[in-house]
Amino acid sequence: MPHINLPKDIPGIRSAMAFRPETAKPLNDLAHFLLHEPNSLSPGERELIATYVSSLNDCFFCQTTHGAIAARHLDDNEQLVLDVKRDYEHAAISDKLKALLRIAGKVQKGGKNVLPEDIARARAQGATDLEIHDTVLIAAAFCMYNRYVDGLATWAPDDMELYRTRAVRTAREGYRYTQEEIMAAYTKGKT
Amino acid sequence: MPHINLPKDIPGIRSAMAFRPETAKPLNDLAHFLLHEPNSLSPGERELIATYVSSLNDCFFCQTTHGAIAARHLDDNEQLVLDVKRDYEHAAISDKLKALLRIAGKVQKGGKNVLPEDIARARAQGATDLEIHDTVLIAAAFCMYNRYVDGLATWAPDDMELYRTRAVRTAREGYRYTQEEIMAAYTKGKT
Repeated sequence: MPHINLPKDIPGIRSAMAFRPETAKPLNDLAHFLLHEPNSLSPGERELIATYVSSLNDCFFCQTTHGAIAARHLDDNEQLVLDVKRDYEHAAISDKLKALLRIAGKVQKGGKNVLPEDIARARAQGATDLEIHDTVLIAAAFCMYNRYVDGLATWAPDDMELYRTRAVRTAREGYRYTQEEIMAAYTKGKT
Repeated sequence: MPHINLPKDIPGIRSAMAFRPETAKPLNDLAHFLLHEPNSLSPGERELIATYVSSLNDCFFCQTTHGAIAARHLDDNEQLVLDVKRDYEHAAISDKLKALLRIAGKVQKGGKNVLPEDIARARAQGATDLEIHDTVLIAAAFCMYNRYVDGLATWAPDDMELYRTRAVRTAREGYRYTQEEIMAAYTKGKT
């Protein structure tokens, strides 16, 4: 049961967002920009970083939500998402993404864990400054989203089909429609 | 030295924001809403929560920046800020804020550490659902800001007077002018 009185029947972070739509707006804008807008890292690669960090933070809702979106971007390859979470160094992904996932894992533990050799490895695999920046910020942002979701003990459905269905739309449109849904749920709750 | 090529002479998170103004916008909007907009928790109380979490994450730039802003909101009482960082249970703050700082400290370790008894203690001291929500989100957000600042190894000045001077304006205006500065620095860097 959530720690505070969140809207019923809305899962995970969206229930907290519908409770407080003012803060939901920058949270959705940030996710949209980091994960969906055009970037030299593909949306699938960025969703894998988000999923991996969420798995390190043991956040069921976020790793399932973003894992489903990552899979959707990657030809529905759910096995690849599991492989990345379990042992990304041996997963069928690029060496550049492996080096970026290592940075993301360091950020999850704390920013100071990122060492010059981690950056050097990423650069040696062709990572740009912008890609390193975005990797650090995606990892940092999911340390926020994960704590927001679990710190309020939000509810997460067990049915994987719900996550897969929603992932189709999110992979196509990004995160802005989430804010529209939240505003609608908030207004409904107030009337 | 920062891990990537950030604008020189801009300290801390603002150098990373000036590197990537698109993501800076939601980051500044979130800080403005959580820390500065009207709220039943005073700006000083909210800045103390931000400062405490930043000290737990050992982020020099953030704890110094927000510690200075907190002190400015609290009649320039820098000693109180130090007391909260060192041992908030014995600091001269309300029992409600102590209960909220306990929740914030749990969120810093990971969202699942927040237990029903932590929430019950805050409620017994008069905390509302909105105050609990905002405490969890402030703590979660600073787990992001702190990692962003240190994960890129941004530069932080040692001179406390710089933080105090800037805190005067931020305490008065909030965080929106930061975005204007960042856009100006970004445009200058591009021309």
